[in-house]
Amino acid sequence: MIQAEYIHEEPFRCEAGGTIDNLRIVYHISMPGGGPRKVIWICHALTANSDPEEWWPEMVGPGRLIDTDRYTVVCANMLCSAYGSSGPAQGRFLDFPKVTVRDIVRTEALLRRHLGIGRIDLLIGSSIGGFQALEWTVMEPEVIARAAIMACGPRVTPWLTASNEAQRMAIEADPTFRECRTLKGGAAGLRTARAIALISYRSYQGYNSTQAEPDEDTLFAERAASYERYQGRKLSDRFDAYSYWYLTHSVDSHNIGRGRGGVEAALRSIRARCVIVGIDSDALFPTQEQKFMARNIPGAEYHEITSAFGHDGFLLEYGQLSAVLGPVLEKINQ
Amino acid sequence: MIQAEYIHEEPFRCEAGGTIDNLRIVYHISMPGGGPRKVIWICHALTANSDPEEWWPEMVGPGRLIDTDRYTVVCANMLCSAYGSSGPAQGRFLDFPKVTVRDIVRTEALLRRHLGIGRIDLLIGSSIGGFQALEWTVMEPEVIARAAIMACGPRVTPWLTASNEAQRMAIEADPTFRECRTLKGGAAGLRTARAIALISYRSYQGYNSTQAEPDEDTLFAERAASYERYQGRKLSDRFDAYSYWYLTHSVDSHNIGRGRGGVEAALRSIRARCVIVGIDSDALFPTQEQKFMARNIPGAEYHEITSAFGHDGFLLEYGQLSAVLGPVLEKINQ
Repeated sequence: MIQAEYIHEEPFRCEAGGTIDNLRIVYHISMPGGGPRKVIWICHALTANSDPEEWWPEMVGPGRLIDTDRYTVVCANMLCSAYGSSGPAQGRFLDFPKVTVRDIVRTEALLRRHLGIGRIDLLIGSSIGGFQALEWTVMEPEVIARAAIMACGPRVTPWLTASNEAQRMAIEADPTFRECRTLKGGAAGLRTARAIALISYRSYQGYNSTQAEPDEDTLFAERAASYERYQGRKLSDRFDAYSYWYLTHSVDSHNIGRGRGGVEAALRSIRARCVIVGIDSDALFPTQEQKFMARNIPGAEYHEITSAFGHDGFLLEYGQLSAVLGPVLEKINQ
Repeated sequence: MIQAEYIHEEPFRCEAGGTIDNLRIVYHISMPGGGPRKVIWICHALTANSDPEEWWPEMVGPGRLIDTDRYTVVCANMLCSAYGSSGPAQGRFLDFPKVTVRDIVRTEALLRRHLGIGRIDLLIGSSIGGFQALEWTVMEPEVIARAAIMACGPRVTPWLTASNEAQRMAIEADPTFRECRTLKGGAAGLRTARAIALISYRSYQGYNSTQAEPDEDTLFAERAASYERYQGRKLSDRFDAYSYWYLTHSVDSHNIGRGRGGVEAALRSIRARCVIVGIDSDALFPTQEQKFMARNIPGAEYHEITSAFGHDGFLLEYGQLSAVLGPVLEKINQ
């Protein structure tokens, strides 16, 4: 896949107010030769970038299930992400407008039109990428033929908002965040936020099987603590607190039913053929949320995968994901 | 119950090194008249104080199940707590030695001897209070006749340490914590730590049933976020970041098997008659931990209570707790 960017010349008005001038959307696209190809569009998750070959290597690439030699594969970097699309990291810091999942999808739809794509044969998203995929099926029903929506729900839950707020509190407790001078502002807070989030992405069983103390007689347990700090540092080395803070707010905007007569009515309006995937150990989006979507989206299929790794299973359980997505890819080729 | 304090004149040497001079243990005690009474000792949880009539009013008090008119009821404020016992809040800040659960129990045993109590008819503890109760059954097997150990496990898990570390990272990301000038140092970090902890104390179902957005069409979910901030503020108004930080380390020291040939051997050595209580929705200490204890402690009984409120069920489900503890109290009177 190659990286490119699209600049939208018109002012982009955000749902919650505020305007983005010269909206920039960074994206990756595969360009297989030999005429028109089926289009697979991937919506990435919270801190990923627009290169799914990097963060989902078992699933996307030449000869992989999502075969970049065979399909036109597109992934756009989310509005407000740290990976090049417009957002607080582009110089406006906390003057950037707050954005919603619908704003993010509108930027993706602008890019789609710019690329001359009239039909997305398969739209794939997990977690906040799943929010976008779901929202997009409602916003452009004539464009999305099929969607695979994984490890997410139809509306942000109080449970998820509580976690987001604890993470924002961590960032805001770091006084360098409010200084808005460099993208290192709030870095200690961001490390904490990641440490908080990680717990919700994993599971009791996952931590206990991978982070057990090597020494039975250690006085103070340390291994899981060191893992938390390591993962926090790893994120703050590649992401900034401003982008992260904005993205958590966008998560809190997710509500497929807003202004549409409620969640169930919105789900019932979906025309795309949907495959909904849940992970049995997902503590952030328990499978009751995916089952609820599957029950309410006409013709949707529900698949559940088994993982010891909770929500992060959507990145790790590629064998099971391939077994679910393989038949969907066969259908788009028929 | 009346409040009193015990000053231990000898230097108290901590398990991890360091010494506490003039160790002070604040405690509450009931003094029913009419000769010798059965003794019920309560070990409090992380941020509680030594007055169980305040934080467990449905269970403890005159005429309550744990009847302060009938029993000698004792509760000692934990070492390192913010409620008067020795700890970082008494002026030493981060120069205070790190303490373990065993250190905490040793201070309670000193108080017990000072009070002339030779036998504890029933020892009760939940959460970190349960750590103490469990540890005490091993440390003074000749003293503890019965114990009710609730909502805890035999050893800190990596899952719990990860949460503790995320909370410590939040406190440490607040630069006022390292200043060690007033007990307000680290207050913003402490609020975040509480917001993190609260999520682990409650449950998906609990948040979703009590913190749902009142308006279906809200643009950004806010109610659960506001609840997180409120609970953070409520703790920082009554507790300090130093005490909290030390107590999370003491949690990370919990290992009933340390130096005793492992967890199972230590549990098998327990002679007290134990009732172990689990809460079906407890995400911090899933019931597999209590079932494991009950299987390995000779003669232990296991009871499970049902709650929508997760770990905090030990404070809230007093009807079910009374049903479990009632028969135990009958036995101590036989």
